[in-house]
Amino acid sequence: MRVLGIDPGLTRCGVGVVEGMPGRPGKLIGYTVVRSEPDEDISQRLLHLDRSLAELVAAYQPESVAVERVFSQHNARTVMGTAQASAVAILAGARAGLPVQTYTPSEVKAAVTGSGTADKAQVTAMVTKLLKLDAPPKPADAADAIAIAICHIWRGGTRARIQAAALAAARRSSR
Amino acid sequence: MRVLGIDPGLTRCGVGVVEGMPGRPGKLIGYTVVRSEPDEDISQRLLHLDRSLAELVAAYQPESVAVERVFSQHNARTVMGTAQASAVAILAGARAGLPVQTYTPSEVKAAVTGSGTADKAQVTAMVTKLLKLDAPPKPADAADAIAIAICHIWRGGTRARIQAAALAAARRSSR
Repeated sequence: MRVLGIDPGLTRCGVGVVEGMPGRPGKLIGYTVVRSEPDEDISQRLLHLDRSLAELVAAYQPESVAVERVFSQHNARTVMGTAQASAVAILAGARAGLPVQTYTPSEVKAAVTGSGTADKAQVTAMVTKLLKLDAPPKPADAADAIAIAICHIWRGGTRARIQAAALAAARRSSR
Repeated sequence: MRVLGIDPGLTRCGVGVVEGMPGRPGKLIGYTVVRSEPDEDISQRLLHLDRSLAELVAAYQPESVAVERVFSQHNARTVMGTAQASAVAILAGARAGLPVQTYTPSEVKAAVTGSGTADKAQVTAMVTKLLKLDAPPKPADAADAIAIAICHIWRGGTRARIQAAALAAARRSSR
């Protein structure tokens, strides 16, 4: 399963592509950060992000897209831009006909570090270790995006196993 | 000048198209509300809005798009969805190669009623009067979108006059 993870942001939007299966070490396919300048026009910033993400989805051909969910309790000054960037990120997957899943920051942290309150350094360290990278991915926005992709692979696997078990149980009871 | 105004929202997104010039009564070309269900998947909601707005821009062929700006001090429960819808609205104009302008709610209210603190009923009443409509446009989201388009026409005119005056002054001083 190849997943494109997105850590939405208007100034820096992290993108990480991971291939893997639940319970096995994943493989990092690529990562990047899409940037735009805060003094640029909002319509041009959103358009640049939209085009860049569409190109990345076309280039990496993921089977699904995972996006970090934004909460209003975040920094009020930047939260609106982050929410807008998240809409562009979700659209990038939806427009390509891919399933899009969102995860809370604590779900992502818990998936890769075992703790929902881990800091950025811990997330970067675990991403580096889990994917057996020679050096930590930089900047941190890219590491977060990779962590989101890993979270989706593992959680997706859990969900797939639960669905398979439910299906098997339903088959047994209908015999 | 034909303007497509958008009052962004995820559950109800108002769209109003007005043709006019600064200082003259405008003409209502059309209006609608794009809806999606709160229990639907966020990616499908954003995709529906994206496609609907792209179709409306293609159908009405506006020369510019005006979108109401979202603030984080709004209702915290709905503000994230409104911010996401605003990104889709801004993109609808940008992707069509149109200039996109955003206005604060008080700029819009002041433009049509003379008061930045007017309520929805006053905005609807003034939109009905200004455009000489037989009946007020419904629902209120549509009236707000029409008000945003009127605001853009008038403000655009003000800006155009200021630019023209500045240009004329520059020409005089360079003689």
